[in-house]
Amino acid sequence: MAITVLTESELRRSVDLDRSAVDIVAEGFRALARDQAVMPPVLSMAMDDRHGEVDVKTAYVRGLEMFAIKVSSGFFDNPKLGLPSLSGMMTLFSSETGRVQAVLLDNGYLTDLRTAAAGALAADLLAPQSVGTAGVIGTGLQARLQMRALHLVRPFRRLLVWGRHSANAEEYAENLRGELGTEIDVAASAEEVVRHSEVVVTTTPSQRPLIEAGWLHPGLHITAMGSDAEGKNELDPQVIARADRFVCDRRSQSAAIGELRAAIADGAVAEDFACDEVGAISAGMKPGRRADDEVTVCDLTGTGVQDTAIALYAYRRATEAGYGTFINA
Amino acid sequence: MAITVLTESELRRSVDLDRSAVDIVAEGFRALARDQAVMPPVLSMAMDDRHGEVDVKTAYVRGLEMFAIKVSSGFFDNPKLGLPSLSGMMTLFSSETGRVQAVLLDNGYLTDLRTAAAGALAADLLAPQSVGTAGVIGTGLQARLQMRALHLVRPFRRLLVWGRHSANAEEYAENLRGELGTEIDVAASAEEVVRHSEVVVTTTPSQRPLIEAGWLHPGLHITAMGSDAEGKNELDPQVIARADRFVCDRRSQSAAIGELRAAIADGAVAEDFACDEVGAISAGMKPGRRADDEVTVCDLTGTGVQDTAIALYAYRRATEAGYGTFINA
Repeated sequence: MAITVLTESELRRSVDLDRSAVDIVAEGFRALARDQAVMPPVLSMAMDDRHGEVDVKTAYVRGLEMFAIKVSSGFFDNPKLGLPSLSGMMTLFSSETGRVQAVLLDNGYLTDLRTAAAGALAADLLAPQSVGTAGVIGTGLQARLQMRALHLVRPFRRLLVWGRHSANAEEYAENLRGELGTEIDVAASAEEVVRHSEVVVTTTPSQRPLIEAGWLHPGLHITAMGSDAEGKNELDPQVIARADRFVCDRRSQSAAIGELRAAIADGAVAEDFACDEVGAISAGMKPGRRADDEVTVCDLTGTGVQDTAIALYAYRRATEAGYGTFINA
Repeated sequence: MAITVLTESELRRSVDLDRSAVDIVAEGFRALARDQAVMPPVLSMAMDDRHGEVDVKTAYVRGLEMFAIKVSSGFFDNPKLGLPSLSGMMTLFSSETGRVQAVLLDNGYLTDLRTAAAGALAADLLAPQSVGTAGVIGTGLQARLQMRALHLVRPFRRLLVWGRHSANAEEYAENLRGELGTEIDVAASAEEVVRHSEVVVTTTPSQRPLIEAGWLHPGLHITAMGSDAEGKNELDPQVIARADRFVCDRRSQSAAIGELRAAIADGAVAEDFACDEVGAISAGMKPGRRADDEVTVCDLTGTGVQDTAIALYAYRRATEAGYGTFINA
């Protein structure tokens, strides 16, 4: 039985951040909402002496011929070695036999894509129909991808960016200006970003809130995609308490490793605080944005259904294009 | 950066069930006992509509250049397709950068090895010094491997086997007789096996106890290696309550998915029932067998440190032998 091995460069040539990627991720979320998926809790391992951590995510979607198991790693001394901090790989297994079908050596590329795609989906479901100014907090790779993804579903005219280091924000603006063809300005503060944007995406590994509740304004949508571990927190707990609507990718994950965890720990909201899931909205089981002046907040922690969805999609696209090394095993 | 891909046949040609394999697994357990390892809880996913399940195990051992993440699958309709039920693969990641170093497409071979090696280790630490008759409950692959492993550390002269289907037990005896060069007899019952053996290993996926407390006799050692999930249980709870000593590979796992779980649920032992770990005994931090007439029981659920130990060992042996396909990723 031949196993297909795909490399990062083959996968990059096969799939990009486009509407198809957003659609495929949305389909995964809808399967979860319809109880057509099994998604166990994330396996996490911290390697403190290495400044490293590794997460394993998976989900089985009934009806799909394969499921993915995804490993993502963050090793924060890597930049000293000239390597990116984040990496990872995905493996596809047959849903019929449990045997390995394909190994996707993507070094985290597919995780980047599916994370950005979830951001686009959240905005598509919850942001105002017309967005003039978008804002982004953070200046890293996801800050770039999230704004490219948002632009697919809400083609904003202006982008405000803020990061802890203004040089990084300047560089970010420089790089993305050509790519998106929009006006991009560096803001003086996170507050300026929030007060002047209709959609804001936070993309940081921050352990302290970056957005305060006093900055919220009618019609604002915020997506917080940075927190994905117990110590992380981008939104002041009052942001969640005071928003008209709080949505997440997976409630159990948001409560364990996302913004809901911090808000509950703070006492700002109750343990059983209501949180509709993105998949239920995408499936029409719950409403999306209900009014022009609603303040909506979405927390994305990253889920196994996204991994299975993107891995299978990338595998199909790459093998259709003739890529892959075949190993007889 | 080249990633090494090793196939099952390459791995089979590189590592076998021998004393080196037992030693390498023992080293992993000692690292765990000495707090030199990080080992998160097992990730498990049941795919009921497919009669399948998948487990992910991992451990990071400080000082080792790589750590493994191991996926094992059990798909119980596979025999209808002419495939074994169990399969799996291991991936080795750099402990320094978190990046993929090697993919071991072993289809579960290395899991089989490290599981049998742990059985040998448990017997070496807990069985009487001289074993005339060994017993095995179950007739599958692990029943074969466990007796080969036991024979490495306790070269018994006679083996008693019992399985639910006597034809399988006859076939088992036939196959192993030549391999071990010992007398092998098929027993009429599990009771006969236990009453006449000094060491017994249970190797089944049973959900009901196979061994009763009334059969225990002075000097007996039992290793139960079958249960590794919530529904499974090979030993009557009273076996654990009445043994002089209960040992396990990892207490938290035995209490969650092993024999200790069933014994606690039954009320036969308290929640905080004492259980020394194999690694602590191997490291000399706890005693092994303390008296000739002691009755000892060891529960093995299978741990991530075994996977990291065997994967790294197999990788080194295989690459030293010149095996592997190299993928530039």
